[in-house]
Amino acid sequence: MRTVFSEDHRLQDGRSELIEGQFVPVNEMPRRAEIVIDRVRATKLGEVLPARDFGLDPILRVHDRGLVGFLQSAWDEWAATGRTFDALPHVWPVPGLGRRLSDSIDGRLGYYAIDAGTPIMSGTWKAVQASANVALTAQKLVATGERAVFALCRPPGHHAGSDFYGGYCFLNNAGIAAQAFLDQGARRVAILDVDYHHGNGTQQMFYGRSDVLTVSLHADPRQEFPYFLGYADEIGEGAGEGYHQNFPLPWGTDWRSYSEALELAGKRIQQCGADALVISLGLDTFEEDPISRFKLRHDDYFRLGERIAWMDLPTLFIMEGGYAVEALGVNTVNVLMGFEQRGG
Amino acid sequence: MRTVFSEDHRLQDGRSELIEGQFVPVNEMPRRAEIVIDRVRATKLGEVLPARDFGLDPILRVHDRGLVGFLQSAWDEWAATGRTFDALPHVWPVPGLGRRLSDSIDGRLGYYAIDAGTPIMSGTWKAVQASANVALTAQKLVATGERAVFALCRPPGHHAGSDFYGGYCFLNNAGIAAQAFLDQGARRVAILDVDYHHGNGTQQMFYGRSDVLTVSLHADPRQEFPYFLGYADEIGEGAGEGYHQNFPLPWGTDWRSYSEALELAGKRIQQCGADALVISLGLDTFEEDPISRFKLRHDDYFRLGERIAWMDLPTLFIMEGGYAVEALGVNTVNVLMGFEQRGG
Ligand SMILES: [Zn+2]
Ligand SMILES: [Zn+2]
Repeated sequence: MRTVFSEDHRLQDGRSELIEGQFVPVNEMPRRAEIVIDRVRATKLGEVLPARDFGLDPILRVHDRGLVGFLQSAWDEWAATGRTFDALPHVWPVPGLGRRLSDSIDGRLGYYAIDAGTPIMSGTWKAVQASANVALTAQKLVATGERAVFALCRPPGHHAGSDFYGGYCFLNNAGIAAQAFLDQGARRVAILDVDYHHGNGTQQMFYGRSDVLTVSLHADPRQEFPYFLGYADEIGEGAGEGYHQNFPLPWGTDWRSYSEALELAGKRIQQCGADALVISLGLDTFEEDPISRFKLRHDDYFRLGERIAWMDLPTLFIMEGGYAVEALGVNTVNVLMGFEQRGG
Repeated sequence: MRTVFSEDHRLQDGRSELIEGQFVPVNEMPRRAEIVIDRVRATKLGEVLPARDFGLDPILRVHDRGLVGFLQSAWDEWAATGRTFDALPHVWPVPGLGRRLSDSIDGRLGYYAIDAGTPIMSGTWKAVQASANVALTAQKLVATGERAVFALCRPPGHHAGSDFYGGYCFLNNAGIAAQAFLDQGARRVAILDVDYHHGNGTQQMFYGRSDVLTVSLHADPRQEFPYFLGYADEIGEGAGEGYHQNFPLPWGTDWRSYSEALELAGKRIQQCGADALVISLGLDTFEEDPISRFKLRHDDYFRLGERIAWMDLPTLFIMEGGYAVEALGVNTVNVLMGFEQRGG
C-alpha cells in the first residue's frame, strides 16, 4: 500500500491546550506523524509519495468560506494584537442566542472553535492545507484504480465541521476526500470512523445527505469528548435520514465488544452501495492511550484492518487521532498490514 | 445609604482563567469586595448589614432548575474524578447542532458555561448563593421604602443567563432582584447595566418580556467580550420588543461620550413607568482597568451617581465587575455618594 505524506505537518506544533481544567502540553504533536512514517518505512509497507497541491476548490466543496478564510488569516490577526503565543478561544456563543461574528480575533476564535484545545500558530494554515492535500492526493490514487492508499494526514480532521474547528482538527480531510470521490463520479461514498472520539464534524457535514453514508464507532458521549453529539438515535435528517449511524461504546470496551459493533458497521457499509470507502483511522482506542479508555491491543489492529478489507471497496485510509505516541506507528501500520494480508 | 454584604464571597477564589490565549490568575478575586467594603466603612457611607437567606425560590423564578442543580453539585462531581484544582470547561456545543446533556462533568461544564474564565471550586455554590442573598436582602429594603441600597454582591451576575453561566458570573443577581420587585407588586422594573461589558445574561433573561426594561451601556461587542451579543439592533422580541436597549461604545470612550449615551438611557428609563431601578454597577469603565479600554476617571463616577439619582426611582445598586482593584473602592463609593448628594 502506498502512503502519501507531507513534512509540512510539523508546522502545526502547539504548546498548550486546556483539558479537564488544566493547561497542559498539546497531545496532538508532530512526533505522532514522524513515528508513523518511520514505521511505514521500516516495515516497507510501500512507496511514500509527496502531496500535490489541489488549491482551495475541493476544500470549499464541504467547508464554509468564512471558516476557511478565518483559518488563513487567524494567526496574522492574532499576532497583530502583539501576542506571540498560540491562539486559543476563551469565550463562545450561548447556544440558541445570537452568534454575531465580531471584528475581534478573540470573538472570531470563539465563533469558529468548539474547544480550547486546538491552538493556532504561524504555521497552522500551511500544515492544515498540506494535510488536506495529502488526503486529496491519496484520494486521487484510489479514484484512479489503486485498491487502497494511506493518507498520513496531520493535523487530523474528523472534529472539523462545515463551519467549525476543534478537537485538534481544522479541516475535515475525510469529508473533503469523500466529496472528491463524488465529484469524480462516485454515486455514494461511505466514511467509517474508528477513532476513539465521535466524529462530530463528519456527522454534521453530511447529516442531511444520502450520498455519503457516515458511520462512527466511538466512546459514548455520555462519558467522553465531544459530549454533545454522537448518540445512537442520531441517524441523519431529511434526505440523509438513515445515512448516519453512531455506535457509542462504553469505557473499557475491548476487541470482543468492539468487533461486534464493527461487524454491524461493516454490514451497513456493504449494503449501502458505496463506490468507495474512507476510513477515519484513529488509534486512540489503544489500551495505553493517555486520554482514552478503550482496551484494544496491538494485534487487534490487524483484525480491524482485515475486517475493513472484507468490505471489499476501494479504500482510502485517513489518519486521525492516537496519543500513545510510541505505539502509534505499530498500531497504525498493523491496521494497514491487516488490510493487505486479507485481500489484494 | 445602607450596604448589604456577606463574608462568604471569599469562598469564590479562583486560581486561573483562560483569557486571550493564556492561563492567568483570575481577575475576579476576593480582594475586590474587601476593598469596596473597606471604603464603604471608611467613608461612613452608612450601616453595613448581613444577608438574610431567601432560599432557592427567588432564584428559580428566573433561572433554569438544571443550571441551579448543576452549580450546586458541580464541584462534588468534579472532585469525584480525583481532580483537586478548579473546574473549567474545555469543549462546548456547536451552535445549531445537538446540545445533549452528558453524564460527564466535563460535558456538563461545557453545556452550561459560556467561557473558560469562570472557575468552580469547593466554595463556589456557597459564595454564589450568598451573593444572591445579598441582592435579595437589599432588594427587600428598597421594596419596603428605602430610597437606595447597595448590594455588595460577589461573585457578580450580569453574564449569567437563565440557563448559562460565565464571565465570572453564576447567578444573575440583578435579574433575581428585578423579579423579586415584580413578585412583591411592582408593575415594571428597569435594569441599567453600566458595567464595561455587555450584560448578555440580563439581556437573555428578559428579552421576551416587557415587565423588565433592560438597558446596557458597554464596550462594542465588535471589539470586546462577550462578542456575540450586545449590538444596537437587539431591541427585545415578542412581548419584549422595545424593552431592551444596547448602547455599544467604542474603545477609548471617555465621560463626554459616555454621558451622552447615559443621558439617552436615563430618558428611556424615566419614560418606561418603572416602579424600581436596578443598577448593574460595574466599575471596569475606569481608565486604569487592566482588562478594559474606556477612559472614565475617579470624578466621573460621582456624576454617574448623580445622573442615576435624577431618574428618581427607588434604586438598588448591585455590584458587578471592576478589576483595577486598588481603585475599586473609591470608584464604587463615588457613584453611591454622587447619588446621595444629588437627592434624598
Ligand atoms: Zn480521537
Ligand atoms: Zn465587566
